[in-house]
Amino acid sequence: MQSLKPVFEPKSIAVIGASREPGKIGNVLVKNLVDSNFPGPVYPVNPSADEVHGLKCFKSVLAIPGKVECAVIAIRAGLVPKALAECGRKGVKGAIVISGGFSEAGEEALENGLVRISRRHGIALIGPNCLGVVNPAAKMDSIFLPTYKMGRPTQGGIAFVTQSGAVGSMVLDVVAREGFGISKFVSYGNAAAIDETDLLRYLMNDRETNIIVLYIEGVKRGREFYDLTKRLAKKKPLVVLKAGVTEKGIAAALSHTASLAGSDAAYRAVFRQNHLIEAKSLDDMFDYAKIFTTQPKCAGDRVAVVTNGGGMGVLAADALEGEGLKLAEFSRETRKALRACMPELVKDENPLDLVGDADASRFSDAIRIASSDPGVDALAVITLFQTASLDSRVVDVIINASARKRKPVINITLGGEYSEMQRRALESSGVPSFSSPTSAARSLAKLVEYSRFTKKA
Amino acid sequence: MQSLKPVFEPKSIAVIGASREPGKIGNVLVKNLVDSNFPGPVYPVNPSADEVHGLKCFKSVLAIPGKVECAVIAIRAGLVPKALAECGRKGVKGAIVISGGFSEAGEEALENGLVRISRRHGIALIGPNCLGVVNPAAKMDSIFLPTYKMGRPTQGGIAFVTQSGAVGSMVLDVVAREGFGISKFVSYGNAAAIDETDLLRYLMNDRETNIIVLYIEGVKRGREFYDLTKRLAKKKPLVVLKAGVTEKGIAAALSHTASLAGSDAAYRAVFRQNHLIEAKSLDDMFDYAKIFTTQPKCAGDRVAVVTNGGGMGVLAADALEGEGLKLAEFSRETRKALRACMPELVKDENPLDLVGDADASRFSDAIRIASSDPGVDALAVITLFQTASLDSRVVDVIINASARKRKPVINITLGGEYSEMQRRALESSGVPSFSSPTSAARSLAKLVEYSRFTKKA
Repeated sequence: MQSLKPVFEPKSIAVIGASREPGKIGNVLVKNLVDSNFPGPVYPVNPSADEVHGLKCFKSVLAIPGKVECAVIAIRAGLVPKALAECGRKGVKGAIVISGGFSEAGEEALENGLVRISRRHGIALIGPNCLGVVNPAAKMDSIFLPTYKMGRPTQGGIAFVTQSGAVGSMVLDVVAREGFGISKFVSYGNAAAIDETDLLRYLMNDRETNIIVLYIEGVKRGREFYDLTKRLAKKKPLVVLKAGVTEKGIAAALSHTASLAGSDAAYRAVFRQNHLIEAKSLDDMFDYAKIFTTQPKCAGDRVAVVTNGGGMGVLAADALEGEGLKLAEFSRETRKALRACMPELVKDENPLDLVGDADASRFSDAIRIASSDPGVDALAVITLFQTASLDSRVVDVIINASARKRKPVINITLGGEYSEMQRRALESSGVPSFSSPTSAARSLAKLVEYSRFTKKA
Repeated sequence: MQSLKPVFEPKSIAVIGASREPGKIGNVLVKNLVDSNFPGPVYPVNPSADEVHGLKCFKSVLAIPGKVECAVIAIRAGLVPKALAECGRKGVKGAIVISGGFSEAGEEALENGLVRISRRHGIALIGPNCLGVVNPAAKMDSIFLPTYKMGRPTQGGIAFVTQSGAVGSMVLDVVAREGFGISKFVSYGNAAAIDETDLLRYLMNDRETNIIVLYIEGVKRGREFYDLTKRLAKKKPLVVLKAGVTEKGIAAALSHTASLAGSDAAYRAVFRQNHLIEAKSLDDMFDYAKIFTTQPKCAGDRVAVVTNGGGMGVLAADALEGEGLKLAEFSRETRKALRACMPELVKDENPLDLVGDADASRFSDAIRIASSDPGVDALAVITLFQTASLDSRVVDVIINASARKRKPVINITLGGEYSEMQRRALESSGVPSFSSPTSAARSLAKLVEYSRFTKKA
């Protein structure tokens, strides 16, 4: 397999199909590379333009004087083979074909032609019919969507690999808003040459990636996928959302990307056997990504719940038990320490209800005491910011508790603007904050399960 | 039972425990009534203050010259019986006891005393240990939480009834932010006198309420609850979230409110038999509230999906089938009409993938054609605002389609700030917008199920 470095970390880029017309794909592509301060040269290619966004434009990739590592191609499908062959002759080693109109539109022959050209010249070919690549560290951005419509995430540890461009654009936009950083993003579309297994192999060894999230409608090479993910899961958590699960879903997937969705049961079996972390919905996918990228492994399944609202404690107890986790039994020392510093109304029980007038300092005491209990493996801290006594000082308390990284610490916050502000502050400091006990418990259960597996593996 | 009008629509209010000290409960209570422009007189009561927030303060409720319909009581538990008895002598007909320190703290005798006093004087008693009442239409607001920490919803059709104050404050805050209106809100705490069944009976006949949402940890009077909800569900949808489901959850509930949580299976059976709409999580609860309060009944289970992203269509197909709904089969006329106005890449299938360059006018055509198909019972419109061609004009298209109210129309949108803006615009115009196909499908399935029941009933 070709190296994927030229597409993820190119030192120079040609945009084939660069356009002077605002809003056109070939215009936005150049603009985004310029705006993101791509450090190497960007070469617009268009036979009928002199310059695009202040950059000199070339008639073809062959006319570019310097070296070109990666070509982003956004021209009519019928013109792509010629352009790709020229890239080959120029010595371009990575190509991202954004253009649609290939196998997904019944044009298999045209797509097979691309594969042949890329093989002949040793080009790593992403696409066609894709969004391509984002790599914040390398300031690489091949997404043709304007930044005001779709935000770009900061640098972090999550790699997103998605077959669907639509899902991909939505993922980037949500992740940018939530404030979680990514190591790499790739939307690989029809996977004519480079497919999900190739991408996973690259990311398995990528040092900037600590967790991989995969959206697929089907897999190209089942055996290779199985073998690779078996090895990968021992190194890094792999969260997978498989669409095309039901009969109608499979039919829709077929119509959409012409990939064979395959039997749902077979996929499930592979995921389970290889200890992949299966997300059943987009919500799960985001939740799992954020807990795995921020939290340490969990030594066991005993969770302490700290809350300033009794009802939320009850819901959390339900949710944790419902996911097969346990409410930790506080030790005698813990109970004693709690009784020593808590007001009388606070019972030394788990869930630990700090009651409605709890402030940041009561939370601080409670979190310190509960997390020191050897019978506690993880902490779920529920903060109802609606009360008069709880303010943003508790955010620092939770961030500090989490920063020790000995045990997982997660937060549950739900409310209006004020609450949302605190939630964002927590998340941008590496504390995953969930909007409900249900999603928090589900995510924690996945972390516990995967931690158990890696301990054995 | 006493009329509940004095607590939900009082013409005059005494705040017993009014305080001059900013941040104190008795201070915030008066401030919120003043700020919300409560139309009748507000009488602060405090033996040691002359005025609170510019209002003349009285030594006791008996010293107030005019009539008092409702008393909001926030003083130490031990002082409440005397104050309540004075209310009785004054002829006050509604009392909201916010103070805690009663049965939830082991003080059953004190609580029973309140009940006796309220019965003797015919006072409708809410609480103790509660947040009390919000009624936007009457500008009644007994919540002691500052408005900058907890938003207040506008007027609308949802009534929220919650045992837990913590859950209640969070609900109000979320609903205020999401922009859904409420008819009434009541947090009833220990339910010493007025309990959930009394409140449901009142709301069943409340003309401003079109849907009721109930959070309970347990029910005081099982038989009465059963009989009433059987009748109620035929008139209005009743969404119920029952906490204290697992063994640990039940234990936590017991410790928290001293209410008998009872067997989960028994509750489930009642909910199912009486066609209550059970929410399994807070997320479900909000989702169901918004679809039921805005959407008409659904004639069947055949859903058309319109999307500008193929992958999201696949996920929607999975989610709908997973919830037992059907993807509608488009009629020959529908297919013909679609082919006549859609670009070639758009296949005349359901999910209807309008592809990545779809704009508002393509959505408009698609929604018009799909919703005219007699084989379509509901529409799920997925809008990926990340694309360059889709902008806020599509919001009007969807609002107009929804405003016809012939068939349910729901939206699915997920993304960053831009998307979030559009989502809010849709929701504030009565189109429920979901952040994932999964939650949309689950909510639609509940609407279909309840519609089927009311057709038969």
